[in-house]
Amino acid sequence: MKLYEQVANQVKERIDLGYYKTGDKLPSVRGLSQEHGVSISTVQEAYGLLIDDAVVEARPKSGYYVLQQQQPPELPAVSSPAPKPLVVAQWQKLQHMIGEYGRQDLVKLSLALPDMESPTLQPLTRLISQISRQETQRIFNYEFATGSVELCHQIARLAIDSGSRLNPDEIIITSGCQEALSCSLRAVTEPGDIVVVDSPSFFGSVQAIKINGVKALEIPTHPETGISLDALEMALEQWPIKACLLTPTNNNPLGYTMPDENKIRLLELLSHYDIPLIEDDIYGDLSYHLPRPRTIRSFDTEGRVMLCSSFSKTLVPGLRVGWVAPGRYYEHVKMTKYLTSLSTSTLSQPVVSEFIAQGYYEKHLRRMRKNYLRDRDTMIGLLKRYLPDGTRISYPQGGYLLWVELPGHVDTNELNTLARAQGISIAPGTLFSASGKYKNCMRICCVNSDSPEIEPAIARLGELCHELLAGSLLPE
Amino acid sequence: MKLYEQVANQVKERIDLGYYKTGDKLPSVRGLSQEHGVSISTVQEAYGLLIDDAVVEARPKSGYYVLQQQQPPELPAVSSPAPKPLVVAQWQKLQHMIGEYGRQDLVKLSLALPDMESPTLQPLTRLISQISRQETQRIFNYEFATGSVELCHQIARLAIDSGSRLNPDEIIITSGCQEALSCSLRAVTEPGDIVVVDSPSFFGSVQAIKINGVKALEIPTHPETGISLDALEMALEQWPIKACLLTPTNNNPLGYTMPDENKIRLLELLSHYDIPLIEDDIYGDLSYHLPRPRTIRSFDTEGRVMLCSSFSKTLVPGLRVGWVAPGRYYEHVKMTKYLTSLSTSTLSQPVVSEFIAQGYYEKHLRRMRKNYLRDRDTMIGLLKRYLPDGTRISYPQGGYLLWVELPGHVDTNELNTLARAQGISIAPGTLFSASGKYKNCMRICCVNSDSPEIEPAIARLGELCHELLAGSLLPE
Repeated sequence: MKLYEQVANQVKERIDLGYYKTGDKLPSVRGLSQEHGVSISTVQEAYGLLIDDAVVEARPKSGYYVLQQQQPPELPAVSSPAPKPLVVAQWQKLQHMIGEYGRQDLVKLSLALPDMESPTLQPLTRLISQISRQETQRIFNYEFATGSVELCHQIARLAIDSGSRLNPDEIIITSGCQEALSCSLRAVTEPGDIVVVDSPSFFGSVQAIKINGVKALEIPTHPETGISLDALEMALEQWPIKACLLTPTNNNPLGYTMPDENKIRLLELLSHYDIPLIEDDIYGDLSYHLPRPRTIRSFDTEGRVMLCSSFSKTLVPGLRVGWVAPGRYYEHVKMTKYLTSLSTSTLSQPVVSEFIAQGYYEKHLRRMRKNYLRDRDTMIGLLKRYLPDGTRISYPQGGYLLWVELPGHVDTNELNTLARAQGISIAPGTLFSASGKYKNCMRICCVNSDSPEIEPAIARLGELCHELLAGSLLPE
Repeated sequence: MKLYEQVANQVKERIDLGYYKTGDKLPSVRGLSQEHGVSISTVQEAYGLLIDDAVVEARPKSGYYVLQQQQPPELPAVSSPAPKPLVVAQWQKLQHMIGEYGRQDLVKLSLALPDMESPTLQPLTRLISQISRQETQRIFNYEFATGSVELCHQIARLAIDSGSRLNPDEIIITSGCQEALSCSLRAVTEPGDIVVVDSPSFFGSVQAIKINGVKALEIPTHPETGISLDALEMALEQWPIKACLLTPTNNNPLGYTMPDENKIRLLELLSHYDIPLIEDDIYGDLSYHLPRPRTIRSFDTEGRVMLCSSFSKTLVPGLRVGWVAPGRYYEHVKMTKYLTSLSTSTLSQPVVSEFIAQGYYEKHLRRMRKNYLRDRDTMIGLLKRYLPDGTRISYPQGGYLLWVELPGHVDTNELNTLARAQGISIAPGTLFSASGKYKNCMRICCVNSDSPEIEPAIARLGELCHELLAGSLLPE
């Protein structure tokens, strides 16, 4: 940890412990500098970090003050999915949603799209032009099946931040994280097998399980600490489970990050039963606070973890650049990837690689972390204001997705039908379960939640919820 | 058919029938113009076409003369594969080959790479820059799961040339033809099923069959007319076959194009047994002579044919743009594609679409057809000169691949090991069979076969063959 980060952490600790409360003036720069024996500029950097994290505000010519810390929302209940493996349903509903990507006429709270208008993305277009002109023959040709050597090198470098020492030649580039997940799943399962997942669970994983002819066994999941390890242990004892598929950091949709001790215990359990873990880390780099949480892969000494990720949420999805470090399953995943699509789009790979190498990725992430934290708090504020009493909301520490549990018998499929008629889309909870649970839940994307169209949209959603609760609307 | 094409065909027919022999002077432009009642310029265009096809040469101030027509080579024998379904092997050998894409130090006769240095490809780079600047937000986002509407429209327009009336919304864009084949296969088979293929057969299809846990039943195949329909009928009678996978036009590797009557009878057979056909048309647009052969899909009235293709062989592979028109299996293929990789690289799609719309594709194809015909003849000439007597060579009417059957017991895996040590790679025949047949065969790519490094490479290959035949080299 850098010096200024240490200073910032110590100031933050004093606030968390209650020594300084909202509105209190914090120690002066000179005072902190003397106390810690560090330079003035180090303290200024520390305060800069706390401002970025929305912990502190600077008042001109006065000093630094503690900001109002938002009260965390009331969290959703721990889930209690069906305790048996199920064939996944829900494809039809998913279809509606995937038809929405290009639509301009909807307020799309349903989709997990990142902010694609940030000025920190501008170098991408320049790199596309430049590389396509300077390396024409290269970008016309197939890339190696395992991907661009330079890009693998950059990914290995980034992985150090999540505690992993990856060798570039352990990495396989894929067409987005979905291909990484899907190839990993195919490499370690056969039709009829059982895979354990958290619950709720990302619909892309759940549906990929479906088309592989595999059954999903959903495990009760806590909205802050993730999958219940006791429940998992019972399941491993009871069923012939072939793999475990999780998003343990900044989870989609529930927002949890498993604490390190849970990550370690999970790995021990899987090791005991000799089962591979497919770890989806796609939102890991979007953690609001640094250092970002470690991946489970970073604790793995057996090559048991197949670490999957992509640049679709941290950068832009249209480039379709993802990757997998499949550990001991490398050869099988490599073959599966090759026979699925030969190789990944050649141009996208040096574009992403250069974007990282030239320092743009770090700069972009810094901005996005700050913005998404603000977006999360804005959206939670709106949801608290407009949705019915008793609504519970997740409290993620990274990413830009919220899981919302509505009170009573509000069916979010009905809510979505009504909302779409008024130009608003949400992701109904049933999409995130093999068995169609979570009827009263929905996933909300909070990117740019301070845009002018968002508040009216949430207000309208709130009205629809109230009407559904009052039974004054007849379902179709 | 256009008027000048009709005139050209009539002149060609007289040559084929022997009315004009090599070196003979052909009728004058004025004469033909009067005979056919067409304009001078129409006859000039007709002769232009015959010059492009290397049938005729123009001698300045003298007229048009019949060129030396190359004697077709002696064709490979009709194949006789194992008459039972097999689990596919050969992955290890394929790995060597896929490691070669980016290597600069090899004369790569092994890979099916198109000519990527043609000046007719130059507009691609301009379009990449232009579209990424002008439509930044669009190319950052996911494309619809089924692909760009404009590109589907262009593909439907091109399909008219192969006799098909496709509706743009019947088409799904994929990451190359391999994803189209792989998703089609997954949509209509389950592990343990049997799929019939031609023999030899494209290794990408054969291996995709393998990783889907499906067995391949190879059918005897004629080097000019393709799969034996009588053998197919017997197989359909005998085995519970779930799908048929073929490249019926400008086949890879054997070069055959099934005659229309065979295509029609194949479809009738499959209809009788209610079995889907996965038709790989990736080399279809590279037919040397116009009009190009019809696809089997163009005869299909039942939605039975899943037509797969891409721009990897006609344009460049690095863009990873392929497509499938899956007929009645549309919904299942759409789901499989989505859950395999969500959507295809967004930027590549408008680039290809504009390249077609602005007329560059047609211009490029015109040039490539002519060049690849010349490359085929040059390569056949070299192979006849340097390879041992008794060598048989395919005689494709499109594309740029030759299938070469060596005499005696030359093992092309050994040949490849020896050749690679001297900087030359070939594709050993065993790659093209589920059961590792075709040990004495190889596939040779003939793109740019008049480049200075090709003749010495073929000469060296010939020497190695002679040495292997003489038994003077010990295998490793």
